[in-house]
Amino acid sequence: MTDPNNALEYVRANQSRFLDELKELVAIPSVSTLSEHKADMKRAAEWVAAQLRGIGMKNVKIMPTGLHPVVYGEWLGAGKSAPTVMIYGHYDVQPVDPLDLWKTNPFEAQERGDYLFGRGASDMKGQVVASIKAVEAIMKSDGKLPVNVKWLVEGEEEIGSTNLEEFIKKNKKMLAADFCLNPDAGMTAADKPTITTGLRGLAHFELRVTGPARDLHSGGFGGTIHNPAQALAELLAGMHDKNGKITLPGFYEKVRKLSKKEREDFKRVAPSNKALLELTGAPALWGEPQFTPVERTGARPTLEINGMVSGFIGQGSKTIIPAWALAKISCRLVPDQSPEEVEKQLRAYLKQNAPKTIRWELTSGKGSGAALVSADSVGVRALAKAFEATWGKRPLFKREGGSIGAVIMLQKQAGVDSLLTGFGLPEDNIHSPNERLHLPTWRKGIEALTRFFYNF
Amino acid sequence: MTDPNNALEYVRANQSRFLDELKELVAIPSVSTLSEHKADMKRAAEWVAAQLRGIGMKNVKIMPTGLHPVVYGEWLGAGKSAPTVMIYGHYDVQPVDPLDLWKTNPFEAQERGDYLFGRGASDMKGQVVASIKAVEAIMKSDGKLPVNVKWLVEGEEEIGSTNLEEFIKKNKKMLAADFCLNPDAGMTAADKPTITTGLRGLAHFELRVTGPARDLHSGGFGGTIHNPAQALAELLAGMHDKNGKITLPGFYEKVRKLSKKEREDFKRVAPSNKALLELTGAPALWGEPQFTPVERTGARPTLEINGMVSGFIGQGSKTIIPAWALAKISCRLVPDQSPEEVEKQLRAYLKQNAPKTIRWELTSGKGSGAALVSADSVGVRALAKAFEATWGKRPLFKREGGSIGAVIMLQKQAGVDSLLTGFGLPEDNIHSPNERLHLPTWRKGIEALTRFFYNF
Repeated sequence: MTDPNNALEYVRANQSRFLDELKELVAIPSVSTLSEHKADMKRAAEWVAAQLRGIGMKNVKIMPTGLHPVVYGEWLGAGKSAPTVMIYGHYDVQPVDPLDLWKTNPFEAQERGDYLFGRGASDMKGQVVASIKAVEAIMKSDGKLPVNVKWLVEGEEEIGSTNLEEFIKKNKKMLAADFCLNPDAGMTAADKPTITTGLRGLAHFELRVTGPARDLHSGGFGGTIHNPAQALAELLAGMHDKNGKITLPGFYEKVRKLSKKEREDFKRVAPSNKALLELTGAPALWGEPQFTPVERTGARPTLEINGMVSGFIGQGSKTIIPAWALAKISCRLVPDQSPEEVEKQLRAYLKQNAPKTIRWELTSGKGSGAALVSADSVGVRALAKAFEATWGKRPLFKREGGSIGAVIMLQKQAGVDSLLTGFGLPEDNIHSPNERLHLPTWRKGIEALTRFFYNF
Repeated sequence: MTDPNNALEYVRANQSRFLDELKELVAIPSVSTLSEHKADMKRAAEWVAAQLRGIGMKNVKIMPTGLHPVVYGEWLGAGKSAPTVMIYGHYDVQPVDPLDLWKTNPFEAQERGDYLFGRGASDMKGQVVASIKAVEAIMKSDGKLPVNVKWLVEGEEEIGSTNLEEFIKKNKKMLAADFCLNPDAGMTAADKPTITTGLRGLAHFELRVTGPARDLHSGGFGGTIHNPAQALAELLAGMHDKNGKITLPGFYEKVRKLSKKEREDFKRVAPSNKALLELTGAPALWGEPQFTPVERTGARPTLEINGMVSGFIGQGSKTIIPAWALAKISCRLVPDQSPEEVEKQLRAYLKQNAPKTIRWELTSGKGSGAALVSADSVGVRALAKAFEATWGKRPLFKREGGSIGAVIMLQKQAGVDSLLTGFGLPEDNIHSPNERLHLPTWRKGIEALTRFFYNF
């Protein structure tokens, strides 16, 4: 059973049905952060569970957590000598606003040219379906798998995997595995299969500045009362210096220096500045000048304002001093930084810098630390081989700017390392309007995953 | 006809009906800045016109402008030897959001204790009705007025009197008057009748910062693309120095120095810092330390953020770099500053300070310059005498932080100076939730205005 050919034939013969099934899943608006989508979250979990049952997985169950359920399933028929591969996925997606920038309904998966458009098509419903279809192809062709598998498909990745750590802790025995295949990281380009060896962590904050007890007339009180929107702007502006370096006290203390070898690896995967500008539409690049853009997203922590609101934002004008102002802030963390420490650093910054003319309140969402994965493991070798067979070239190894809490939690709570890959492309507009999936790459991805399971 | 006693008796006998009529006007949601209230604006204008007709005014008409109509009316039966007093008012009100902070429906005028609650009760429907009722009392008691009057009641004061200047220019002859009684300025306290001798001007701006073509994934692009919300915060923060001084180039060039006499006048009307803190609920006062709070609102220009919005402001979190960020800004101007010059100064600031990593766009609303009125005129003397008779004390003379475009426009286009007064109190919550009118003061105001017309 070392030959994937029957399974690969099955993949090619069933591609059109695979795509139809992906469209079904994309059509379920499983936005985990919005409570009005709670029923959709359940529907998406049930869809995944039904798929796992349909491809012969055993013990498939939808397991409740504090918020959105985890879908579990397993097939352990390969015996104790074969490795046990956990397959991770998430069935939740980001919100879709601003909706008016979408060219088609984000929850009506639409094929146009080489792309499937829809929220979650790339991040990561396409990847979840690719994993399921690879396993289906092997099960339907050979009647069994070359390895044992365990599925862990959560519904809270886009909100920081809030309940996953507790879930893993509680179900450590059930989740025991040699490693975890996590296809939630992307590729560098359609012709560059990629294995990700590092991920940034994430910390979430909400900073609320209050001043007067209510909105004030700006003529009657302007010049005597510190405007909370201005005070917030002052606090936010001070969080970076002129070179884009973050000023929170101690923020860079644990950030590792890049080795010469690491900088060379980064160089190999670096997109050109021109490509980055075209991809984003920004007028110029920005950030710490002593690092290249790919180093800044891969190996440097960040602090971003994700949202900001204060006062009158309707049509026309209203001459007030707003009573309050709010910013949503998140930090991408690199190895050895922790969300708890960053919260302390942010509080220290606010204590040092917030004036007595306003009050401030900081709340924190659940975050996760960063991860570095060894590039030399059984899983990485099996996947590299599968990529080489599929694309005809060795994969790139890169460190990603994104954050996947599950990676940290599995490592910490169950001792399971993650093998990070995926078939999303930088230009897929994930988290943005008009998210899309490059279908030729997706199809290659299914083939590559199919091959991967035979490489042990 | 130098005796106001019959008219004053009429005022006292009809107070309860006067209040009912004020409640009718407050119940019309005439929010000039929101297009969905266009029909309500028309209703409010019609209500005012019907009142003027009802009290014997001639030639009453609702005159269209580019947006909301002006109500005009006159009574010129006092003859050429008597002065002609224009009476100014505005029937439009500020928006009511945040609605959840109102204890009662803002458009259902509610009496509680000594107060009438409702949007516009103090600013300035209460003042408009007070003027109408004073004239009604004289007309109904004496059958004529001691002076000629012309009414100018506009519907765009809260949006910067956008079309009023053009209207005055076109109707200069119709609007010819010796001076204008404008009761849109307030009192210092319920026992301190006040005549305002200075007003600040107003300039409105909207600053929009754009960066990437769409919201970006903060993991994929954080650290390489300048976050527009951060860039906006940086630009806004830089508009004041640490002492609350505005940094726009040339902003203070034309600002007059305060004379010793002026500073003494300010001292007389200065509320205590404790009173200001209680009034506003702010934790501390703020602003240029070399000036007192009442000097800062009366004689110093300001720059305020009235509103600010960017990115994801819903429930939970969304890890994006927002595509754009917007701030609504207004400046209160002092004599010799002009909105046009301030716009140039703001543009110069942005040109100097906006980085190349973002794009910015500034739009301006219609503004007005500041006004200073002579404290020694026929009108001021007549009003001071009426206040003394009503309150038993001489009025205070003060310079106000607010802005009334009509004052500037009447001066510039028709050569008519304004006599600024009013019966609103600092704690009336104008432009804020739970706006209210202090009824005992309002009733005294009607008496004082009645007496005023006999003092020529």
